[in-house]
Amino acid sequence: MSTWPDTRILDLLRIELPIVQAPMAGAQLSDLAIAVAQAGGLGSLPCAAIAPEQVRREVAAFRQATTRPLNVNFFCHQPPAIDAQRDARWKEALLPYYREFGLMPDPAVAAATRAPFDETLCALVEELRPEVVSFHFGLPPAPLLERVKASGARVLSSATTVEEAVWLERCGCDAIIAQGCEAGGHRGMFLGEDISRQPGTMALVPQIVDAVKVPVIASGGIGDARGIAAAFVLGAAAVQLGTAYLFCPEATIADVHRAALRRARDDGTALTNLYSGRPARGIVNRLMRELGPMSAAAPAFPLAGSALTPLRAKAEAAGSGDFQSLWAGQAAALGREMSATELTRRLAEETLAKLAGA
Amino acid sequence: MSTWPDTRILDLLRIELPIVQAPMAGAQLSDLAIAVAQAGGLGSLPCAAIAPEQVRREVAAFRQATTRPLNVNFFCHQPPAIDAQRDARWKEALLPYYREFGLMPDPAVAAATRAPFDETLCALVEELRPEVVSFHFGLPPAPLLERVKASGARVLSSATTVEEAVWLERCGCDAIIAQGCEAGGHRGMFLGEDISRQPGTMALVPQIVDAVKVPVIASGGIGDARGIAAAFVLGAAAVQLGTAYLFCPEATIADVHRAALRRARDDGTALTNLYSGRPARGIVNRLMRELGPMSAAAPAFPLAGSALTPLRAKAEAAGSGDFQSLWAGQAAALGREMSATELTRRLAEETLAKLAGA
Repeated sequence: MSTWPDTRILDLLRIELPIVQAPMAGAQLSDLAIAVAQAGGLGSLPCAAIAPEQVRREVAAFRQATTRPLNVNFFCHQPPAIDAQRDARWKEALLPYYREFGLMPDPAVAAATRAPFDETLCALVEELRPEVVSFHFGLPPAPLLERVKASGARVLSSATTVEEAVWLERCGCDAIIAQGCEAGGHRGMFLGEDISRQPGTMALVPQIVDAVKVPVIASGGIGDARGIAAAFVLGAAAVQLGTAYLFCPEATIADVHRAALRRARDDGTALTNLYSGRPARGIVNRLMRELGPMSAAAPAFPLAGSALTPLRAKAEAAGSGDFQSLWAGQAAALGREMSATELTRRLAEETLAKLAGA
Repeated sequence: MSTWPDTRILDLLRIELPIVQAPMAGAQLSDLAIAVAQAGGLGSLPCAAIAPEQVRREVAAFRQATTRPLNVNFFCHQPPAIDAQRDARWKEALLPYYREFGLMPDPAVAAATRAPFDETLCALVEELRPEVVSFHFGLPPAPLLERVKASGARVLSSATTVEEAVWLERCGCDAIIAQGCEAGGHRGMFLGEDISRQPGTMALVPQIVDAVKVPVIASGGIGDARGIAAAFVLGAAAVQLGTAYLFCPEATIADVHRAALRRARDDGTALTNLYSGRPARGIVNRLMRELGPMSAAAPAFPLAGSALTPLRAKAEAAGSGDFQSLWAGQAAALGREMSATELTRRLAEETLAKLAGA
């Protein structure tokens, strides 16, 4: 078997294959991470939307299944201030849909929980000792980051611009995920808010590679071995794939999400803030067409989703994904349905063959 | 010297190097095309903004300098209907700037001329017999396209989505330029208008390669040999570079544009319709920050630019590029200042070395 042209990430994270499974909150738990780890890639557990007790259970399940390294992922957003006016505007914007579904606005709907990394979660990292900790939306405050590093974990975070990459390196990140604009799910952007300036993967990766010394993990629009090989040629030392893994049976997405992925097109996604309050790429559905995809009325992250919960439930029960996030990147149509272990192995083999034959 | 992994475009267009210099209306004439052709790439002459007589002169200059093939480029937009109300809204939006510069709104300002490909230009193609004719914004009506093909020219056009690529192939394009969202200048989009769904190069190229049989020319965010090599790995048979050539002395851009390119950042551009009426990527300047970058008030293509002409003149005289298009792609910061002949040769050598070593 050929060897990888760059082994820095393999050495740093102690993995066999330079393929990171993107942590996808709400779309997977330890099953997916285990399947990827068993193939030799980096399995990831998204922890932003689950309680500490569930993190413990999922990590235990991972440890029981494999001795490979585990990446646990947290969000680093500022908890939002409550903005009653914006909240009222948002509920007003959704009122016609409530009426259509025969729903009554319910002020008691549970708030979406997306806990930022804090003292409690830091103590959890110190207890569970994951080999890798990755952050989204920047990094936690320095004292917490120091404790994570002192626990022995390698630290990763996403940069959507060169400026963010330089900032992350200066703060001590061991490797940087270059998240091109094609990527599905939440933009990791944390130094700016202007989505119109977000660079695509082809432009972003080489410019970040030139700007930092730590290894770069390319993400965004990479759907198969061609994209992985191209990322290496651009200077990346590994790739992170999210959407490709949503096609695997280990992903826990809703049936309507899976069905939408099977129909995915290159021009079928957009960045939207409707489902969480922060820009994230998903398959365009009715709510995005009618209210956005970006709306000034959507409450700050992560509050926007709460008022959508009853609409999502009603729609989904009727087989429609029109009122929920259908996260997907622009290469979703390249997805193949097979187990995550098999997918990881095949992607690695096909990439090595491509790099050898190029 | 190594050989290219895919020679379909070299054979089709009879060029030595699989590098197409993007035709850039208003930014270059035959000097740039000659310099690129002399290195073995495909030199291109943008003809949308110059009169037929000047096309004749520029083609003659090219023919005198080299026997290599020439690409002439035309636009295929629908001439816009005059919309007095939108025009008035636009002038009102610009009024504060007119006041700031001490200018009087002048209804007699010359309309921007961007002639669509028509009977006259088709006769010009039949007269001048360029080896390659490329179109932007789709293709001309079938009878004109037939005449272009009957003249012996190879026909290219840009696709920004898989749907557009399939359409272009069905209409008889000999090769398709896959224009990723990172690209500078006008989006070639012609089957849709929604810029929020435009795919990046990393996602677009392999999906177009899978969807058509004709060879694909990758463009958008390709700034150096890494990007060119990555495009080949993604399945492209050639690349088209625009922004990289704006750094060459043969480009005829304004000093303020050149200065802005030297300061370019990965996150410094956006798609804007302010300067022409159609979305195009340029370096963010004051007008884009204050009125857009996208504005519903901007008149239809190509009318938006006319009312800006006096503002541009005043600002440029004071050393400012704040009221003119500063077209650039997201990889502009990778640009190097050297002659276009030297740049083309170096890019080819560096790409071959990279492909051999990958």
